[in-house]
Amino acid sequence: MTDLVITNATVVTCDAMGTVIADGGLMVDNGRIERIALSADLEAAAASARRVIDGTGYILMPGLINTHCHAADSLFRGLVEDLPLEPWLQTVWKAEGAILNPETCRLGSVLGFAELLLSGVTTVMDMFWYPSETVKAARQVGMRVSTGGIFFDPPGVTGHDLEGRIAEAEQFFEEFGAAEDVFPAVLPHGAYTVAPENLKAAKEIADRHGALFSTHAAETRAEQADITGRYGRSVIRHLDHLGLLDERTVLAHCVHLDDEEIDILARTGATAVHNPMSNLKLASGFARVPEMLAAGVRVTLGTDGAISGNDLDMWMALRLAATLHKAVSAKADAVSTAQALAMMTSAGAAALNAGDRIGSLEPGKLADMVLVDVKRPHAVPMFDPITHLVYSTAKSDVRHVFVGGEQVVRDGVLTRHAIEETIEDVELLTPKIAASIA
Amino acid sequence: MTDLVITNATVVTCDAMGTVIADGGLMVDNGRIERIALSADLEAAAASARRVIDGTGYILMPGLINTHCHAADSLFRGLVEDLPLEPWLQTVWKAEGAILNPETCRLGSVLGFAELLLSGVTTVMDMFWYPSETVKAARQVGMRVSTGGIFFDPPGVTGHDLEGRIAEAEQFFEEFGAAEDVFPAVLPHGAYTVAPENLKAAKEIADRHGALFSTHAAETRAEQADITGRYGRSVIRHLDHLGLLDERTVLAHCVHLDDEEIDILARTGATAVHNPMSNLKLASGFARVPEMLAAGVRVTLGTDGAISGNDLDMWMALRLAATLHKAVSAKADAVSTAQALAMMTSAGAAALNAGDRIGSLEPGKLADMVLVDVKRPHAVPMFDPITHLVYSTAKSDVRHVFVGGEQVVRDGVLTRHAIEETIEDVELLTPKIAASIA
Ligand SMILES: [Zn+2]
Ligand SMILES: [Zn+2]
Repeated sequence: MTDLVITNATVVTCDAMGTVIADGGLMVDNGRIERIALSADLEAAAASARRVIDGTGYILMPGLINTHCHAADSLFRGLVEDLPLEPWLQTVWKAEGAILNPETCRLGSVLGFAELLLSGVTTVMDMFWYPSETVKAARQVGMRVSTGGIFFDPPGVTGHDLEGRIAEAEQFFEEFGAAEDVFPAVLPHGAYTVAPENLKAAKEIADRHGALFSTHAAETRAEQADITGRYGRSVIRHLDHLGLLDERTVLAHCVHLDDEEIDILARTGATAVHNPMSNLKLASGFARVPEMLAAGVRVTLGTDGAISGNDLDMWMALRLAATLHKAVSAKADAVSTAQALAMMTSAGAAALNAGDRIGSLEPGKLADMVLVDVKRPHAVPMFDPITHLVYSTAKSDVRHVFVGGEQVVRDGVLTRHAIEETIEDVELLTPKIAASIA
Repeated sequence: MTDLVITNATVVTCDAMGTVIADGGLMVDNGRIERIALSADLEAAAASARRVIDGTGYILMPGLINTHCHAADSLFRGLVEDLPLEPWLQTVWKAEGAILNPETCRLGSVLGFAELLLSGVTTVMDMFWYPSETVKAARQVGMRVSTGGIFFDPPGVTGHDLEGRIAEAEQFFEEFGAAEDVFPAVLPHGAYTVAPENLKAAKEIADRHGALFSTHAAETRAEQADITGRYGRSVIRHLDHLGLLDERTVLAHCVHLDDEEIDILARTGATAVHNPMSNLKLASGFARVPEMLAAGVRVTLGTDGAISGNDLDMWMALRLAATLHKAVSAKADAVSTAQALAMMTSAGAAALNAGDRIGSLEPGKLADMVLVDVKRPHAVPMFDPITHLVYSTAKSDVRHVFVGGEQVVRDGVLTRHAIEETIEDVELLTPKIAASIA
């Protein structure tokens, strides 16, 4: 007996062929997709399934993958505004220092992850203090997370020295190395906050565990100037020179790259995470997404934290990824809808070295999936479902979300966690947060 | 006895002083705002009011004003993609020619206006064929509209010659000149589709009725080259030379302007409508919004039609207006949150020559107002309500909308019109629309 059958949906698989089924569905068993088929061919399975969902009026698609986030920073949403990255970071760090501890990190992460999951994000790469709290928060709402020990040379929130950072990173693998819902990583903050030898130490740990390595890179002009001044090489060349770039490396931002740096990303297989809203709001600039795609760089999509966003809206990021570069390049086909959609599905999965498990609807993959309501006044008529997802869909159109076959969002409401409690706790903390930068 | 009292809200008045009341509300009588006050000072009024709304957890703000739209084009949402303006327009016009008649224009307008009203837009300037159908559609959902006869030298959908266009424009004033819910206008399509003498004829009609005049202007580089080639002057200089620019002139787009053209707008008092999503998607470019604001040009906000959007999301437009120009100029304070918010409230009202009636919450003004839910996971905590509206609010946060004191959206649902019927009618028409460009 099959656990779940969904029928009568428009299925956007996001597989390598770009398969779309106008009237189809799938079977889920033991948390994995067993079969994808026309609705007509699912009738027998539906008759004997434990649960059947009528997908009429919905697009069924894979869960979204957000490859750059700091969910707990949602606590500071809107606190510091209209400054460029460097002075903005100084103020944000002041607030973080005053407020963050394991408990508040978890609280903020639950807030951020709730927002993400409600919008259909089933996997997030998140960089933050106390990574085991991050995992607990993800489990509290029911999503997958890629995270791990962070590296940061100043004391930061946790006050660790290098030894402490290494211990935390190793500890994370012990705790979560074998978990199906965690994609373990080591996450140094950036080349401007982590010395070369410490970046190498972080990468060494990641490599020893066959794990991911993620850092901020080439976000602003000031950062490029800083790194070039210190090390005689631009950010990407510096990282490459240190041997940090390969297919398991995920670089957030990559805004200010020259052609040769784009070639380095293409050659090494490192991922560039495009965070368009953060780059706009912090005045960082426009990542050269069409050039990166043309060079064969894997480009994925992220929201960054809600202090630079000010929300974690992957649909906004998708829309921007598909439209911004048209205006920048004066080419109306600069980024195609298929390319944009891949950034938050299949390419995101590949970046997390998890293309065999997530990022598309295919038999054998984990049943991470989303039902998007396509009968809203802002979203009819629908001529092409891909176009529809990229240009007409809003986060509020996501009605049902499944992770490993478990329904974690039902009719726009989390099933595992009462978010009202989190919101209350955040509001109790709000006066203290406001006072932290006064 | 007062008709309606709203208390316990965060009131963002959008008045000239930028007044925000942390815990306040207002009284509505006969469709107008009678008084705005602290919640404590509204207790007596609430005790005897016909209806009291507890605004706890909401921002109360004026209804949004969208100053450039073609709502009926929502019928063609997603039909023609990834082309620059000129070839795109040719295909769109082909579809329009095959599909549009008074009935389908009204159907499309209801669809578009429903979307707008649900997102809190209470007044829209709309340019489309059969303007009296546009008014009927606006009344069907319960919003205000600025529209009127359009001018277009080719036959277009209605097939009128100049005389027919003039007759239609005059007829509109006869029918709707005195209506409180209509801001009558004359709307020639653009300098590239309407000859100089016909633009002047349109303006003459508008002036005779003391009415608004709106046209597309300086949207693309190709348009600037075309007009300069034909008339020896750039678009804005051409319109100025013809005597078409004054405080009742509303110019959609104004993307490609030199400094002198910006000065012409400032000197004449003409409004520039910023349509960021349309400009991005059609690869038109980035309007020089910070420069226009610095020069004293009135800049307002629009969605354009859903064929270039692909939706009519003023909150997306607001977010882009506030963030895009930061990245373009590399200045994190290029457009302030207050400036951005004004574009879709007070400045929009001034552009429609209706600043005495709409665009802010002030005693004596029409009770066009919106309640925005601020307790969503993507939108807590809230440190500053203006920042919150500009950077964290999504259209789905709009829960209740009032026009002239009448509740036209209740809990995210239209009160005057069953939108499901419209959606059904649109879907019945969809195969024919798809076939129209085949
Ligand atoms: Zn980041
Ligand atoms: Zn337009």
